[in-house]
Amino acid sequence: MTDLTKQMFNAIENDLQHQLAQLDHKHTQEYFNMLSYHMGWTGDGSGPEATGKRLRPLLVLLSKASILANEKEEIGEWESAVPAASAIELIHNFSLIHDDIQDRSEKRRGRNTVWTKWGIPQGINAGDGLFVLANLSVFKMSGKHPSDRINRVSELIQKTCLDLTRGQFMDISYETRTDLTVENYWPMISGKTAALISCCTAIGAILAGADESTIEAFQSYGQYLGLAFQVQDDILGIWGKEEKTGKSIASDLIERKKSLPVLISLEKKGEFYERWQKGAFKPEEIRELSELLVRDGTLLKATEIAEQMTDLAINNLRMANPRGVAGKILFDMTDKLLNREH
Amino acid sequence: MTDLTKQMFNAIENDLQHQLAQLDHKHTQEYFNMLSYHMGWTGDGSGPEATGKRLRPLLVLLSKASILANEKEEIGEWESAVPAASAIELIHNFSLIHDDIQDRSEKRRGRNTVWTKWGIPQGINAGDGLFVLANLSVFKMSGKHPSDRINRVSELIQKTCLDLTRGQFMDISYETRTDLTVENYWPMISGKTAALISCCTAIGAILAGADESTIEAFQSYGQYLGLAFQVQDDILGIWGKEEKTGKSIASDLIERKKSLPVLISLEKKGEFYERWQKGAFKPEEIRELSELLVRDGTLLKATEIAEQMTDLAINNLRMANPRGVAGKILFDMTDKLLNREH
Repeated sequence: MTDLTKQMFNAIENDLQHQLAQLDHKHTQEYFNMLSYHMGWTGDGSGPEATGKRLRPLLVLLSKASILANEKEEIGEWESAVPAASAIELIHNFSLIHDDIQDRSEKRRGRNTVWTKWGIPQGINAGDGLFVLANLSVFKMSGKHPSDRINRVSELIQKTCLDLTRGQFMDISYETRTDLTVENYWPMISGKTAALISCCTAIGAILAGADESTIEAFQSYGQYLGLAFQVQDDILGIWGKEEKTGKSIASDLIERKKSLPVLISLEKKGEFYERWQKGAFKPEEIRELSELLVRDGTLLKATEIAEQMTDLAINNLRMANPRGVAGKILFDMTDKLLNREH
Repeated sequence: MTDLTKQMFNAIENDLQHQLAQLDHKHTQEYFNMLSYHMGWTGDGSGPEATGKRLRPLLVLLSKASILANEKEEIGEWESAVPAASAIELIHNFSLIHDDIQDRSEKRRGRNTVWTKWGIPQGINAGDGLFVLANLSVFKMSGKHPSDRINRVSELIQKTCLDLTRGQFMDISYETRTDLTVENYWPMISGKTAALISCCTAIGAILAGADESTIEAFQSYGQYLGLAFQVQDDILGIWGKEEKTGKSIASDLIERKKSLPVLISLEKKGEFYERWQKGAFKPEEIRELSELLVRDGTLLKATEIAEQMTDLAINNLRMANPRGVAGKILFDMTDKLLNREH
């Protein structure tokens, strides 16, 4: 982390803790505990590994700071956007808590998930609570920004949340469908992954008072960053090296995740499709299956798409023209995120 | 229903349908279907019985109309508050969908619940979707009201939602607690029931541009209306006549609901407390137990409390001084709600 991202990270953590403290009261102590546990601050395994990198809120603040940098100030003002950045992180975490229940995932970042520890009813409520805290966070900007900008940000956040639930609907419904093609992939990951990242970069630009074409470039940058990231994640989910991803090889195949490579190959209605229709894969088949997806051209096709999305992300970031220290960090971060092996 | 409430009801239904139509698209058709089913418009058993009375949004509109009534206009303007009324109804329904999952309730208003039909993962997502639609609804008022009033309404709605999740946390956590007293009852039902009703009447007053003391009177009216309603519901849940409540006699006892009468009697640490500690009640014990709660003075105490809350609701409504046709409806409705046998 650079000095600037460290500063921003700390500001985000402070603000998030302040938001959650609204529940730190007599009758709701354990409610506060479960949210604080989920955020990575308390309980077994708490600490930097558990909080995650707070990438999304950092994107909000870096986008804003990069627009407002000028000849006098190498770093543009970003502090006033912290409540919006927190709102995004809280929404991300609300969706993770509900996701974990929906997928019956028992672990997140190596720790027991909220529902595993406190049960499904409290897990649902914990997710709801983080969503409400996100919505409340936005009001803390009043007086610090023109009210039309705040309203635009609030509305964009809610539209993004609607996209999130749309993507989630598709993801869940795909589990029982056998007729899926690549055409079904894009609306799902646009909603589930790209919408929120694109919301981050757009919010930074809106709060910086950028002109419409800059806002659009930042929004598109976030959109393609999200898509590129997800496609790459899907590739790593099948061909990633175990020691680098921390997941067992081709775990996405075992879980029958409707990832891009799987949909590309299913669409061919060839050998992989035939095998897929026969039901669950055995662990001993996985290596052969992932090799089959190389032979039938799926890896090549998916890699091409990942490269296209990466190019689009970087081109849009160039068009957005982020400046100063934050601008440089945005380029570096994008590069690191899209050229990762884990 | 009077002509005015019929008009209001239709305006609410139209607006709600308009909100949900945002999901009526190719990739999310079934998502739209589940929300539309839950709202009572489509699927098995749809119709007036399934939609419910839309009491909460009516309270928003009636409160506003009653403040703006004057010598020239017997009915004050209420149409501009419809999006806020819809927001409240969507929040109420979001909480019902999640509640039904949390309580594992298979039926609501005689129909299968969303999770029973579409599974828990889609049920959680359907609730989330209604919450987002509620938040989006508020933006539809911009330009129709001064922006400071809209902001105040938005923030009050979110604070109320935080109260809802607080109350829900307590309700769920009480299931496994054996040390509860009446002191634990009030924060739970304040959050679960009274907060949203009090939000309705306060919103009506805020959007009408009422002075602070009037806003406060409307808010308190809603608060006590909610509390009185819940206490009465708790009494009917044990002593209500089966043919009037539509539930089997004393079903709250079978379900071991931590209702006011139960908490009053548990606090006494007498005969009822002893029996409660021994675990689940058998159906054949129920009549004897409900009689025991009469003998030990619980029914009397609970009825006294219901009357106190009812008096406070009516006194606050008088202080709020609602006028014209809508004012009369508010008094009639309050009277009907608090003197019911079902």
